[in-house]
Amino acid sequence: MRFGRVAVIGVGLIGGSFALALKRARLAGHVVGAGRSRANLKRALKRRAIDSIAGSAGAAVRDADLILVATPVSHFEKIFREIEANLKPSAIVTDAGSTKRDVVAAARKCLGRKVCQFVPGHPIAGAERSGVAAANADLFKGRRVVLTPLRENSSADTKALARVWTRMHAKVSKMTPGEHDAVFAAVSHLPHLLAYGLVSDIASRRNSKQLFGYAAGGFRDFTRIASSHPEMWRDIAIANRDRLLHELLLFERKMKKIRSMLKGRRAKALEKTFLQARSVRERWLNGNYA
Amino acid sequence: MRFGRVAVIGVGLIGGSFALALKRARLAGHVVGAGRSRANLKRALKRRAIDSIAGSAGAAVRDADLILVATPVSHFEKIFREIEANLKPSAIVTDAGSTKRDVVAAARKCLGRKVCQFVPGHPIAGAERSGVAAANADLFKGRRVVLTPLRENSSADTKALARVWTRMHAKVSKMTPGEHDAVFAAVSHLPHLLAYGLVSDIASRRNSKQLFGYAAGGFRDFTRIASSHPEMWRDIAIANRDRLLHELLLFERKMKKIRSMLKGRRAKALEKTFLQARSVRERWLNGNYA
Repeated sequence: MRFGRVAVIGVGLIGGSFALALKRARLAGHVVGAGRSRANLKRALKRRAIDSIAGSAGAAVRDADLILVATPVSHFEKIFREIEANLKPSAIVTDAGSTKRDVVAAARKCLGRKVCQFVPGHPIAGAERSGVAAANADLFKGRRVVLTPLRENSSADTKALARVWTRMHAKVSKMTPGEHDAVFAAVSHLPHLLAYGLVSDIASRRNSKQLFGYAAGGFRDFTRIASSHPEMWRDIAIANRDRLLHELLLFERKMKKIRSMLKGRRAKALEKTFLQARSVRERWLNGNYA
Repeated sequence: MRFGRVAVIGVGLIGGSFALALKRARLAGHVVGAGRSRANLKRALKRRAIDSIAGSAGAAVRDADLILVATPVSHFEKIFREIEANLKPSAIVTDAGSTKRDVVAAARKCLGRKVCQFVPGHPIAGAERSGVAAANADLFKGRRVVLTPLRENSSADTKALARVWTRMHAKVSKMTPGEHDAVFAAVSHLPHLLAYGLVSDIASRRNSKQLFGYAAGGFRDFTRIASSHPEMWRDIAIANRDRLLHELLLFERKMKKIRSMLKGRRAKALEKTFLQARSVRERWLNGNYA
């Protein structure tokens, strides 16, 4: 399995790492990159993540055998529209979007009957750093990649794509787009919103300088994901709005219970909650939860 | 400056690290340890954090020149009562409690006129690991230590204690107990409660196994502090109950604003919030916020 020509639309942390990993695994002949920032594409060229720069997404996909769209999800409709006419029939298109229902909807809307060539994917390899400067060929090693295949996809395309990720040492699994969005609203999108919320909360205080002066390692780790890409997370929040609102509600309910323990000075109930949380987390870390 | 005999009540992560750091700085002659767990004290002896084990806090402080109380704060009243009669007049007593108003109240209640010998302190060196096994002489290096001296303290005692922490390469500052509890409710106690809350929330779902199966690095770091010592955090929550409830309220208000942006699909407002949070956090990490 080898792709003569690969196009990466959006050569940031994910797109750049995908290109580097493809090359290291000798899965790609020529990699062409497209994106909004010329400076970033030049860095990608310099890092040899890509071999050439295309002037547009449409130009990039011409003759490409494999195409990864790795921009913020709000750009997908425009990109799908641009590439549709230039897709060759045997090309496989995939993406790295953190939400899947909206991406699938955009593909159905803009790719027409060529939607069968689009196998949606999500590599779980976020990092608070962004841009091709942070990219590395090992980014997907040991990470999960979720594919949410469409009924229109050929099983050959889905299998080929799964093999690409496996060759990058990722662990591939499959879900429906709806299941994907529900799962990640809980374990990823909600914590991001809470982390952004806490930093925003502390920053808005009159004595914020004093407060940050005493914030330590616990605060730093809790809020690490508040250094994530604001535009990307804006798009994720909006795209997964209904599930995220639902998660916020469930979290609020849980915190209401904890607050009522605190109000009632129910020390034993608090300790039990903390103990159970710690125990579940330790089992999870040790791989003994599932 | 050297202390002939030092007593550490509660030889866990903090107490054990304090003992190891004291010894490395050649500030202590003999270190005696006391605590609830005989097994832990034996480990402390084996690690040479302490030189001997006392049968009780009262016995430990006899002839001691410096005493550190480093147990969960709910034990302080009992410990102060036990040690009061055996304190020699020149001894300095301090503590490592994460809350200060309750600790000061316990000291005033149980130490009588000897409260002048008690200089309250809080080394900001939490870690999710606990017990003497995790202790190390470098734990306080570069960390902040907050002293909340009482009007009864002699400036000589306060200065001597500040020097001890400085010799451990900690950065010492002073606050009132009330100011301390307000600051740490915001930047430490609240995030701990939220992290415990999130793990507890996800663990209580019917599909919790699936959810934890897809939780990744962001979730791990966000919830790191949910692996903290449950008994210690029960005591902190109860002791700082009023300030923590206030912080919960402010955080809820902030999340309500963010939720309303999400409900109204106000993408620009969300992006602005995320961008500001990231920018503040980056400035904080780079030491450019204060």
